[in-house]
Amino acid sequence: MTETRNGDAGDSALAFAQRRPESTRTRLLTWQDPLESLAAGAGLSGLEYVQRIAAGEIPPPPIAVTLNMSMVSVEHGRAIFEGEPGEEHYNPIGVVHGGYAATVLDSALGCAVHTTLEAGEAYTTLTLETKFVRAISRDHARVRAQAEVVHRGRRQATAEARLTDVETGKLLAHATTTCLVVSA
Amino acid sequence: MTETRNGDAGDSALAFAQRRPESTRTRLLTWQDPLESLAAGAGLSGLEYVQRIAAGEIPPPPIAVTLNMSMVSVEHGRAIFEGEPGEEHYNPIGVVHGGYAATVLDSALGCAVHTTLEAGEAYTTLTLETKFVRAISRDHARVRAQAEVVHRGRRQATAEARLTDVETGKLLAHATTTCLVVSA
Amino acid sequence: MTETRNGDAGDSALAFAQRRPESTRTRLLTWQDPLESLAAGAGLSGLEYVQRIAAGEIPPPPIAVTLNMSMVSVEHGRAIFEGEPGEEHYNPIGVVHGGYAATVLDSALGCAVHTTLEAGEAYTTLTLETKFVRAISRDHARVRAQAEVVHRGRRQATAEARLTDVETGKLLAHATTTCLVVSA
Amino acid sequence: MTETRNGDAGDSALAFAQRRPESTRTRLLTWQDPLESLAAGAGLSGLEYVQRIAAGEIPPPPIAVTLNMSMVSVEHGRAIFEGEPGEEHYNPIGVVHGGYAATVLDSALGCAVHTTLEAGEAYTTLTLETKFVRAISRDHARVRAQAEVVHRGRRQATAEARLTDVETGKLLAHATTTCLVVSA
Repeated sequence: MTETRNGDAGDSALAFAQRRPESTRTRLLTWQDPLESLAAGAGLSGLEYVQRIAAGEIPPPPIAVTLNMSMVSVEHGRAIFEGEPGEEHYNPIGVVHGGYAATVLDSALGCAVHTTLEAGEAYTTLTLETKFVRAISRDHARVRAQAEVVHRGRRQATAEARLTDVETGKLLAHATTTCLVVSA
Repeated sequence: MTETRNGDAGDSALAFAQRRPESTRTRLLTWQDPLESLAAGAGLSGLEYVQRIAAGEIPPPPIAVTLNMSMVSVEHGRAIFEGEPGEEHYNPIGVVHGGYAATVLDSALGCAVHTTLEAGEAYTTLTLETKFVRAISRDHARVRAQAEVVHRGRRQATAEARLTDVETGKLLAHATTTCLVVSA
Repeated sequence: MTETRNGDAGDSALAFAQRRPESTRTRLLTWQDPLESLAAGAGLSGLEYVQRIAAGEIPPPPIAVTLNMSMVSVEHGRAIFEGEPGEEHYNPIGVVHGGYAATVLDSALGCAVHTTLEAGEAYTTLTLETKFVRAISRDHARVRAQAEVVHRGRRQATAEARLTDVETGKLLAHATTTCLVVSA
Repeated sequence: MTETRNGDAGDSALAFAQRRPESTRTRLLTWQDPLESLAAGAGLSGLEYVQRIAAGEIPPPPIAVTLNMSMVSVEHGRAIFEGEPGEEHYNPIGVVHGGYAATVLDSALGCAVHTTLEAGEAYTTLTLETKFVRAISRDHARVRAQAEVVHRGRRQATAEARLTDVETGKLLAHATTTCLVVSA
């Protein structure tokens, strides 16, 4: 069942696709109901939940499919994500949208904080500060976000992360976050 | 030509789709070569370029298709984007990923700065600071990001933006940016 | 009773003062015990407490003396501070230290959030994001920080503020904050 | 020559001092003309300039006296500051003002970037993002800010820093900055 909702940009893109098929590219996104995945994590600690996703026992969240990214490693207070930025993430100035880097970094940051939660605790991201130091393009085959928790208090957690090109190791962006920790 | 690259999360999602077709959802992304669009803007001022995208004369950038968002209004120093967050943007904790809000906000912020560029000038986003004040879910049919430039100097520009639910007007997130302005 | 603790920089400054009295400047800071002031606010709402400081009924906090700044206006969700940056706030690159702008902005931001507290509530500043758009020097006789609360939820509050030159109205810096609200 | 300008808070503080001498505290600030110090650094690389300040060959900047802080160590891309927060830095809620931590962190961050400048280059701080994780009070005898440059590009530099209690090593705050690098 292919979702037909396109949004305004989607409608505009389809109109261009009809007129200019030679410049048209497509990609099929496939994902599982995210609330079923969430339910599968009930009663687990934060670390157990994200480890099951990393192990492929719980489906990846839809955003991971949409942005071609995956959790590759996770331990208490740390998380590593890798992603494959694609042309479908390009902005109007000819490079991958900064939101791509922000989202991969935020995923690693949130996941690192998530690993520190006891069963029955939850977190909410309050802030995300991202710094872009090099443009990302189709030429970056694979990027890696490494995050670690800096401070874990009773009510707040902070974390920092760096996004690098996997092949060259060059820094592309870095970010910090402040999260609120609550008893669910 | 459907792109076949799936990335790790895509491969995992396809494996789940085979085992659990009843919980599987799909969406087909369609976009145009973004570098052709960029080339179509050569020689235009920043405002003229983004106005042509808003008018549907230049294809929407791929990220707009991927995130179901569109520029709905643009003038000197200001930009409004609207988006339709979907299940394909969900994170592992059962709501739309914060990166979605960050990306829509960054789009409006960058576009607002873009409108201040003379032909021959370019900008790069250095920083994006996002604050999340309410969770976004499938229940938010449509969100709106309104951005305006706060300071436009010779070498830097700053801007701020708010993301609201279109139906209720409630604030969902807000953000600021610092951009570097350069002579291209 | 003049405090004699100088710290390392103070000792170094005194040594220079002996060798080079002609380039030496001094200023005497005078303040009241801040914990007495705090005690005087017990049982008041946040707005009542800061209004009494603004009215001169409770002594200004020491930092206000040290940085030559004062609350000039306060209402629910808003606060205005003015300050007189001086040479004693200069950094090693010949202008007022960015920390001066950050502190005046943070004062207005925190105070704006403070006005939203019920008696029995307290707040803690989690984050402060400051953007510097023009350098501040001895030539800026008076600067004004205007802050307003953007979001006041049950557990978090966000606010934004701008710092301008009082005479010219030019923007000097702007800032945002995220605060945690707790029941004291 | 004691500076007599008090500002509004200073005038208010003096009025309280006359009525309540028993709760009054004072401190005499002493500093050197900061523009003479700046002139003494002309022609030096950034690292040479800050090393001379650290060695006591150039007077400490006035802000260092005002905030009881000193550069204790500096090398290419790194800087360490220590400070002694005092009661004169207290805010209206009974602890050291967040601006104190922000200023010490910004000093270390700016100085770390400064060490990367060639003679003839200058930098301007564009943004400072500060996260407060523990309150600072008179009980913290000495705090330490350690900063290091994360990225040094042609036109921008980013850096990160942590503020800890010297005695216990506990994290108090952390911060990041984005600086613009220009040819002076």
